[in-house]
Amino acid sequence: MHALNSYLEAHRDRFLEELLALLRIPSVSARSEHAPDMAICAEAVCEALRKAGATQARVITTPGHPIVYGERMTDPSRPTVLVYGHYDVQPADPLELWESGPFEPVIRDGKIYARGACDDKGQFFMHVKALEAMVATGNLPTNIKFCIEGEEEVGSPNLAHFVRENRAMLKTDVILISDTAMISMEHPSIDTGVRGLSYIEVVVTGPNRDLHSGVYGGAVANPATILARMIASCHDAENRITIPGFYDNVVESTPEERQLMAAAPFDEVDFCRDLSIDAVWGEKGYTTNERTGIRPTLEVNGIWGGYTGEGSKTVLPSKAHAKISARLVPNQSSKRITQLLMDHFRKIAPAGVQVDVFEHHGGEPYLTPIDSKAYQSAARAMRKTFGKDPIPVRGGGSIPICSLFEQELGCKIVFMGFGLDSDNLHSPNEKYDLANFYKGIETIPHFHRCFAEE
Amino acid sequence: MHALNSYLEAHRDRFLEELLALLRIPSVSARSEHAPDMAICAEAVCEALRKAGATQARVITTPGHPIVYGERMTDPSRPTVLVYGHYDVQPADPLELWESGPFEPVIRDGKIYARGACDDKGQFFMHVKALEAMVATGNLPTNIKFCIEGEEEVGSPNLAHFVRENRAMLKTDVILISDTAMISMEHPSIDTGVRGLSYIEVVVTGPNRDLHSGVYGGAVANPATILARMIASCHDAENRITIPGFYDNVVESTPEERQLMAAAPFDEVDFCRDLSIDAVWGEKGYTTNERTGIRPTLEVNGIWGGYTGEGSKTVLPSKAHAKISARLVPNQSSKRITQLLMDHFRKIAPAGVQVDVFEHHGGEPYLTPIDSKAYQSAARAMRKTFGKDPIPVRGGGSIPICSLFEQELGCKIVFMGFGLDSDNLHSPNEKYDLANFYKGIETIPHFHRCFAEE
Repeated sequence: MHALNSYLEAHRDRFLEELLALLRIPSVSARSEHAPDMAICAEAVCEALRKAGATQARVITTPGHPIVYGERMTDPSRPTVLVYGHYDVQPADPLELWESGPFEPVIRDGKIYARGACDDKGQFFMHVKALEAMVATGNLPTNIKFCIEGEEEVGSPNLAHFVRENRAMLKTDVILISDTAMISMEHPSIDTGVRGLSYIEVVVTGPNRDLHSGVYGGAVANPATILARMIASCHDAENRITIPGFYDNVVESTPEERQLMAAAPFDEVDFCRDLSIDAVWGEKGYTTNERTGIRPTLEVNGIWGGYTGEGSKTVLPSKAHAKISARLVPNQSSKRITQLLMDHFRKIAPAGVQVDVFEHHGGEPYLTPIDSKAYQSAARAMRKTFGKDPIPVRGGGSIPICSLFEQELGCKIVFMGFGLDSDNLHSPNEKYDLANFYKGIETIPHFHRCFAEE
Repeated sequence: MHALNSYLEAHRDRFLEELLALLRIPSVSARSEHAPDMAICAEAVCEALRKAGATQARVITTPGHPIVYGERMTDPSRPTVLVYGHYDVQPADPLELWESGPFEPVIRDGKIYARGACDDKGQFFMHVKALEAMVATGNLPTNIKFCIEGEEEVGSPNLAHFVRENRAMLKTDVILISDTAMISMEHPSIDTGVRGLSYIEVVVTGPNRDLHSGVYGGAVANPATILARMIASCHDAENRITIPGFYDNVVESTPEERQLMAAAPFDEVDFCRDLSIDAVWGEKGYTTNERTGIRPTLEVNGIWGGYTGEGSKTVLPSKAHAKISARLVPNQSSKRITQLLMDHFRKIAPAGVQVDVFEHHGGEPYLTPIDSKAYQSAARAMRKTFGKDPIPVRGGGSIPICSLFEQELGCKIVFMGFGLDSDNLHSPNEKYDLANFYKGIETIPHFHRCFAEE
């Protein structure tokens, strides 16, 4: 691996420059006005793959945002690794909280600050650069395929169809994803699963217009009050979710599994200090790591209604809205939970208001076994570069396509993430540490070698 | 009164044109960017008073928006009437729901559509035109003073000081206000009181930044969820307000008073149809008219937090906000209830979030006796122009300065309003019927005559 390391060392600065160029493209999949940026970003990813040594590199259009494909086939007898990632990013707002422009990446204190720095441009790009290094130094021991999509942050609505239609092209022995976090550089870890997602929007409509809150207040149901009551009713005093049937298919972790989880380093004082909160919160009877790992949750992602401007306005709003999502664990079904949520909000609507609910997107929970060849290859690779065994942990986030990947391609997924939970994913001032970026590029070739050897 | 009526008839169109010009000035007191418009509007009101025959007409600066004063003194031995009104208006948003520009008044179906058409430009302007007609035809039987302020919609923060400092100038025998509604042209009515107001804003802060709802969801208190719970907890299952001490000083109406109220025409089917709601709502044990008249209420005027844009964003918001106001009845004190509300929201804040509460503005409830000379003059005036006795009713809105007026000037207030509850006050498509505008101008001189005679 000496040649590889020399190559990485010699090209560090260029790798970073190339990543920064990618981060300058505002590829926000959720906002229709960014559709042209999505196309530009897809082309840039395709060109990066081509330059790194991929063949068949191309941008594939979909009814939504394009998918980028590329491959480097070395020998049919060797195992194949499919790298999945996404070039789309979350909306950047609230913009006023960014210390520098979300699409004007800057390096501060050894960290890249930009929307997508960690999630996921900075992470999938490690694989592109690792490919380049392996090809350039004659060190690619596997066949490698790339599937980099542009709709992960909106629930991958067009990827499933693409995967089903292109099973032969995507045929692989493992799917490798760097779109998760590890505990820290001192405590490397590998996610053994991701949570599923159900995401709905609730619209409560009361009177057909905003009303004077003096003339009508007290005599007409206020949609904001009603929505608040509905949201409040979704958790009980122990912060368990009260929606009937919600927990029906949850697989409870065994005491042994929970004991293993408890061994992962976690400092509640540091956790609270980092977030400036005076206490953690959540379902009674579970630790913080369990609450984000093995338990399903229900969160308000956004709420609005009535007058939200400067000063005061004495109005009884006509409408109130909320974006609400659940994170799911095995064996909850996203489709079923979405239906449960929608039915529940419709059912608890009181007289005097009308409640409309619609679905945003979802994804199934996914678990990967730690005794698989794929997981063990990732663990060995990280041991080589970090000098210690990675800790298996359950990730709290979601990657909607995982379960479909396994079903359609018949292979396991391994989550070799190099981000940190504190990287401000989906938040202002998203960042990615340069050390993690370079450590990832260094680790990935080890994965390919380990996976090819076994 | 023949000369008066002829004058009114001859100048109808010009009166309307002058009102439309006033409505074109976007005098939104709550928005600092409209401060120049406020000054322009005050000058326009002053000029209108001068042209109508007022002397001493002037714009008086305050630390906030200016107050316009004018008077027409005929004879010290005659009674004096002080007309109070306001040239400021509520913010116009949501703009997209207006069928024509809020500051581009148009006449549709015999109604003036514009922000402020009824509340209160269209109403105080009736008094300006009535003055003009009475002066022009030698029919002014009283002394008349005008105090038209620019901060009614933001709680009159500078008027109290002005009144205290200018007691001699404002000395009067009655205060006449047209800033309320009547039941309908077929059922003229006079408000015997207005409700008080306490208005606060609550800010719930959780983590110091928006968080990824997968990575942190379930383990950190979500400010939007917490705010929803706090709001939900403010009413019980019978829609009574649960804040300790809230009802302490409420004067319960007697069965006789409630019987009288029940005699006022009210059609629940029409009420619901007009608002497109399938049921009324409110405190158990009270009718709709009682809920808006004799009972205090608590309403969410605005709520916001997290992602409110297009599509979805899986974020756990750092902050959530609500604007919340209570309408008060005798003998609740605005100051005390505001303090109760602020203390309550601070007290019920759970660990894991920080709750900040601040005060917007308030005003005391006010009742006027129907056996007063002032009230009886208004009733007689309306009988003359409507051909029937007006019904005394309790108004749901608030005019913050009333209680201070009575205290400082030592006289009663009479609410001779010509608007309708359905005029979309504070809402998109605010309107004022031309028939009501002209009927008001016709009725006002009768008030002056009746008040001078007795």
